[in-house]
Amino acid sequence: MNKEELLNKAGKPSADAMKLHPFYRGKIEVTLKAAVRDYKDFAVWYTPGVAAPCRDIQEEKGRVYNHTNKGNFVAVISDGTRVLGLGNIGPEASLPVMEGKALLFKYLGGVDAFPICLDTGDPEEIIRTVKILQPSFGGINLEDIESPKCFYILDRLRKECHIPVWHDDQQGTACVTLAGLINALKIVGKDLLKARITMIGVGSANVATMRLLLAAGVPPGNIIMCDSKGILHKERNDITKEHQEKLKIMELTNKEQRTGGMAEAMEGADAVIALSKPGPDTIKKEWIRAMARDAIVFACANPIPEIWPWEAREAGAAIVSTGRSDFPNQVNNSLGFPAIFRGVLDVQARTITDTMCIAAAEELAACAAEKGLNPEKILPTMDNWEFFPRVAAATAMKAIEEDVARLVLTREEIMNLAREKIGRAQEQVRILMEKGIIPLPPSEI
Amino acid sequence: MNKEELLNKAGKPSADAMKLHPFYRGKIEVTLKAAVRDYKDFAVWYTPGVAAPCRDIQEEKGRVYNHTNKGNFVAVISDGTRVLGLGNIGPEASLPVMEGKALLFKYLGGVDAFPICLDTGDPEEIIRTVKILQPSFGGINLEDIESPKCFYILDRLRKECHIPVWHDDQQGTACVTLAGLINALKIVGKDLLKARITMIGVGSANVATMRLLLAAGVPPGNIIMCDSKGILHKERNDITKEHQEKLKIMELTNKEQRTGGMAEAMEGADAVIALSKPGPDTIKKEWIRAMARDAIVFACANPIPEIWPWEAREAGAAIVSTGRSDFPNQVNNSLGFPAIFRGVLDVQARTITDTMCIAAAEELAACAAEKGLNPEKILPTMDNWEFFPRVAAATAMKAIEEDVARLVLTREEIMNLAREKIGRAQEQVRILMEKGIIPLPPSEI
Repeated sequence: MNKEELLNKAGKPSADAMKLHPFYRGKIEVTLKAAVRDYKDFAVWYTPGVAAPCRDIQEEKGRVYNHTNKGNFVAVISDGTRVLGLGNIGPEASLPVMEGKALLFKYLGGVDAFPICLDTGDPEEIIRTVKILQPSFGGINLEDIESPKCFYILDRLRKECHIPVWHDDQQGTACVTLAGLINALKIVGKDLLKARITMIGVGSANVATMRLLLAAGVPPGNIIMCDSKGILHKERNDITKEHQEKLKIMELTNKEQRTGGMAEAMEGADAVIALSKPGPDTIKKEWIRAMARDAIVFACANPIPEIWPWEAREAGAAIVSTGRSDFPNQVNNSLGFPAIFRGVLDVQARTITDTMCIAAAEELAACAAEKGLNPEKILPTMDNWEFFPRVAAATAMKAIEEDVARLVLTREEIMNLAREKIGRAQEQVRILMEKGIIPLPPSEI
Repeated sequence: MNKEELLNKAGKPSADAMKLHPFYRGKIEVTLKAAVRDYKDFAVWYTPGVAAPCRDIQEEKGRVYNHTNKGNFVAVISDGTRVLGLGNIGPEASLPVMEGKALLFKYLGGVDAFPICLDTGDPEEIIRTVKILQPSFGGINLEDIESPKCFYILDRLRKECHIPVWHDDQQGTACVTLAGLINALKIVGKDLLKARITMIGVGSANVATMRLLLAAGVPPGNIIMCDSKGILHKERNDITKEHQEKLKIMELTNKEQRTGGMAEAMEGADAVIALSKPGPDTIKKEWIRAMARDAIVFACANPIPEIWPWEAREAGAAIVSTGRSDFPNQVNNSLGFPAIFRGVLDVQARTITDTMCIAAAEELAACAAEKGLNPEKILPTMDNWEFFPRVAAATAMKAIEEDVARLVLTREEIMNLAREKIGRAQEQVRILMEKGIIPLPPSEI
């Protein structure tokens, strides 16, 4: 396929989306989880009966997890300032994405996620609002908040909240990228802790990936990062103090203090992780030719990768990964967050540590490896959801080990809970479709 | 039944609630509203397809109602400061009530309500948070916020929000009380605009009822209100400026400037509306004997009315109403809010005016009247939900008439939408129960 054909192909979901969104007017709804046998049950679910569980929680706050769905509610929160590749489109226009995320949360993770689009872009107000919203939720999933404020917001909330806070564009992407990188390096027989890694783009995802690589033990000096002005090194004097993350990167990375642009950054690298400007000509073939032997290329810009996969292969890349589902090796956040939250919620974790995130990435990598690795299969694919309970369990067991879980369960118990809850969610959709409560779309779409 | 038997009877729902809440761990959940035929549909519901509806909304904000469920989402918001009769029990302990309210919203109104319990009691923070939450919701239902701040919060939000804001403990109770009073007066052949009305208790519900009575044309001088210290009159000097509502009441009501306590307040009254201290001895038989002939008594404290209905009847009351489902004439908010919101959402009303509220009350009264009024049947009962679409339509038609509706529909169209949406919600529960997705509770409960 040439560029035009690929763009056309990418255009089909958009055309369908414009018909199907108005057909359904919403991708999620609220339904009853408890039985109503007759109207007398209202006296149990509402006044006067409901006062008893209220009093019980008043006595001991933690009992809210026994009497309500708090433990399975996750808020998907955005201010709409950096939605997909669309930029700052505002909170209303971001709602279709947040509802979509909630749909994925339920279908893939059995998680009751609710979209909350905030009519403020002020970091302090966002932080305060999230903290005020905590009582109803078991976890918070931040989404599509612009950089650099997203780093500050996430760091503050991770410190100040008593429920786990996750920014999927940071930790989610980092987790799945790490899983892919682990397997790619395994295939070419290189060691993560020794690999030279170049990162193109210094947005939320790449900064978070860099942080996670360091947490996984990668020496910071082995990493070179490149923003739109070129390589980050100590002599760069255009970085202002609003960009705290970049200042840290200048301090920590690039041990040889290389200077220049993308070409120089990629020279000799074992892996390049690009999350930058949509391609296909952002990364040039000759730059890949100048990488180390068996080069690994993650070209994850959407909708068009920084370089077409076949061009990267022609230039000598051993393994190519993109953000698209129509090429092999998709780095897809949906491989991560539903399972990670499933595990986190089922042990009532108070936070999601970097170590938990690494455990999830390693398990995700192991699941793919057990099915047999090859250069076009470094990650699991979603149509096979048996890996979700394993990733849930790996995350939850690490939470227990690190003593951030309120409940202590066995790996088997967590796996069973995950299987049961994800299976139930998919069965629920199947039944509602079969019975016409969720109607099928008109046949022409 | 004596007091003990009645308390025991009231204890049964509590005992059941303590077993059933932990059995279900939540009364509502999030489900898919849109079909997932296979994994390819994710490209329509999420990236890349979802970008198209996002752009469409960015162009014209109002299109968010076409592409998302915003138009059917209502936030049930509380700070947990005045929950049922329990007082300030905190946001976590209020979650079972807010989930219960969401259950009623869905089952009776087909509305997707989501419980939001706020970890702040500060009025300005509550106002700001609600305003920030607007993009995701088609309406806001405030719940169980303490008086007097609830008046200020509601007034500010009604002015400053572009979606309807409702405080059910104010407007909801007022609306259903007005409906009951209209029919009660009809039975005894008295005129609402001439009746002398005494109100015992100056909490959120009675203040809102008083406001609605004035909006309905009742001369303020005909009303006498009584707080725990006695009748409100111009000479009361114990009322501080935090109690703006009481100061206004002192100014407006009680044209004869009566002084004294409940006994004096009730003398010669055509109707007494009590929402005060749980009984059964709050209101005495002799005070009812001193009311006008064919006295109407609304004794609505929970769980025990200010006077037992049979005692009020013995003392000469022609019609007695309470807040309990086990006595005739229950003043039950569930007769109001689900239908009112159904109508309001289906025409995308920007607010709920007092006139809309009166239209809803009049329709509710008319529905009961058509079935045949008698002193033990002044209001419809919930087991017969055909009146909901009519109340929805009355509310929505008034919104259209007052030009606060974004959509103009006919009465027939609104009735059909309401019937369809409420019917679908109940059918959904029935199917989920039948298929075991909502399990039945253990048989011993």
